[in-house]
Amino acid sequence: MNEFAFIDAIKQHAYKQPSVMKGIGDDAAVFRQPSQDIITAVDTFVEDVHFSRSTMTPFQIGYRSLAANISDLSAMGASPAFYLVSVVIPQSWRDEELIRLYKGMAELAMAYHMDLIGGDTVSGKALSLSITVIGYVNRDKARYRSTAKSGDIVFVTGTLGDSAAGFHMLNNPNDYKDQAYYYRRHRMPTMRNDFASGLELLPRITLNDISDGIASEANEIAEASNVSLTIYEEKIPVSENFYQFSKEQQYKWKLYGGEDFELLGTVPKDGWDSLKEVADRTSTPVTEIGVVTEDRNQGHHVALVDRNHTKKQLEKKGYTHRSG
Amino acid sequence: MNEFAFIDAIKQHAYKQPSVMKGIGDDAAVFRQPSQDIITAVDTFVEDVHFSRSTMTPFQIGYRSLAANISDLSAMGASPAFYLVSVVIPQSWRDEELIRLYKGMAELAMAYHMDLIGGDTVSGKALSLSITVIGYVNRDKARYRSTAKSGDIVFVTGTLGDSAAGFHMLNNPNDYKDQAYYYRRHRMPTMRNDFASGLELLPRITLNDISDGIASEANEIAEASNVSLTIYEEKIPVSENFYQFSKEQQYKWKLYGGEDFELLGTVPKDGWDSLKEVADRTSTPVTEIGVVTEDRNQGHHVALVDRNHTKKQLEKKGYTHRSG
Repeated sequence: MNEFAFIDAIKQHAYKQPSVMKGIGDDAAVFRQPSQDIITAVDTFVEDVHFSRSTMTPFQIGYRSLAANISDLSAMGASPAFYLVSVVIPQSWRDEELIRLYKGMAELAMAYHMDLIGGDTVSGKALSLSITVIGYVNRDKARYRSTAKSGDIVFVTGTLGDSAAGFHMLNNPNDYKDQAYYYRRHRMPTMRNDFASGLELLPRITLNDISDGIASEANEIAEASNVSLTIYEEKIPVSENFYQFSKEQQYKWKLYGGEDFELLGTVPKDGWDSLKEVADRTSTPVTEIGVVTEDRNQGHHVALVDRNHTKKQLEKKGYTHRSG
Repeated sequence: MNEFAFIDAIKQHAYKQPSVMKGIGDDAAVFRQPSQDIITAVDTFVEDVHFSRSTMTPFQIGYRSLAANISDLSAMGASPAFYLVSVVIPQSWRDEELIRLYKGMAELAMAYHMDLIGGDTVSGKALSLSITVIGYVNRDKARYRSTAKSGDIVFVTGTLGDSAAGFHMLNNPNDYKDQAYYYRRHRMPTMRNDFASGLELLPRITLNDISDGIASEANEIAEASNVSLTIYEEKIPVSENFYQFSKEQQYKWKLYGGEDFELLGTVPKDGWDSLKEVADRTSTPVTEIGVVTEDRNQGHHVALVDRNHTKKQLEKKGYTHRSG
């Protein structure tokens, strides 16, 4: 059974609570209270599956894990408010290391005015960190991935592939350019909450955070919105010295690398200027990379146009070697 | 470092969000939205630490894990609303078993009108289940463990020690009385949410759910409220055929067994009749087992008076063999 079939088997298909506005199926769940909508999400990180102490300090592991959760809130347009942390602790972790793990979260939480309001610590064989985040967004302003429409501009924030490049550099020491930059992008990513919250006045905008790679996220928007997306490979923004990696690495990392925690979105053309203003105000690099199309005959899919103007379908997963 | 020192090292000592009403330090966290207060808590359960497939089916493991979380909400006086589930999945668990794990949660959720609104599934070495629950309670009606006062009646719901007895029976097969009853009490416990919610009109009541044994929970109330509690051993309610176990087992299980998910509470004497009415209405057995005393000289502690009228301090943990 693949992940999607499994989730489909375990998810509810109708909700009983009248206050639920979005359950499973987006970056986070939404339920309503009278003044603001409340956003909540949970993510779990397991040692030697999602992170390794050989490439990150406990502080960085904590920081990055909470960052991944905050990124989910930003993809909903929400402001972070609270977090709860549950840790499974093996004997191989010393108390001091665990405390630094929590300090890594606390440092990031401080920057976002978040409070740690709960949690659990239990013993087990492998360190696993489960974080629940809760945030607020003004009523009806949660940003879903299901709202893209034909003609929308497709955009991303920041540069893509840096986290995967940093991970590669940590595991394959060599004489790289901008090593510290890539390390930081992998270990202590920047989130785009100010930008996402700033977009509140736009009547419609679709947002997804790039945790699994743009190929995966673009397909999620296409499926949820029942549209197709065309993305131009040349327009995908990469960092200044990204060219130092092989063409194959560049292709793989920028499309499938993930964990950059940048935002992929779609916005109506007449919202583009307002979006750019918010981007300027929040110092957020934003790049137009494609367009939303209606493609009812062929179903919803994502097309990638390469520099030779060749168009091919960009699959959700399953990176395969390019021919040439 | 013990657990308490560790939590003290990692917890925040002041909260930044003006809406937080109760962070770490009770059964669950409370933050305010205009119409109702929202309650949230998280608990993690690890295979072969908190449960075993040798004594429970995947369905029962799911059911019981969510039950433990709902019990935290009941100890706050809250009505359950939502849950989020994060699972670390090892190769030893088949998809079908995982689905039954979720079905066990879903069956209980159905009974409580709860919606599953989020979660995460990741791979790892040992199955671990992290559940976040969210509930609602009317404003200022969350029931804290810090409100006990001298003169209050100490009470418990149901009978204590049954879950530990059931666990023992599952691991030591023999010819027991009421085997099915004890199995059920261990695997699929009853929660006391209707009773707890029904107490809303009482101006003051202290509630803790018995997850770690009454000795531990009573000490938590004493510490949080800065009072002492006196509990009469003879009054602690046990099941009809509890006498079939050795005196030592009975003593250990009813005081330290835990996981009965009954409620321990304190209520002013003039609230006792109202409490009994709610208990009758919700078919909840309630037993007076002691009294709250002010004991400033000796600090806050819990005294246990045994059947020989001998008084001794009941420690939070660390059950030791009785002499006689």
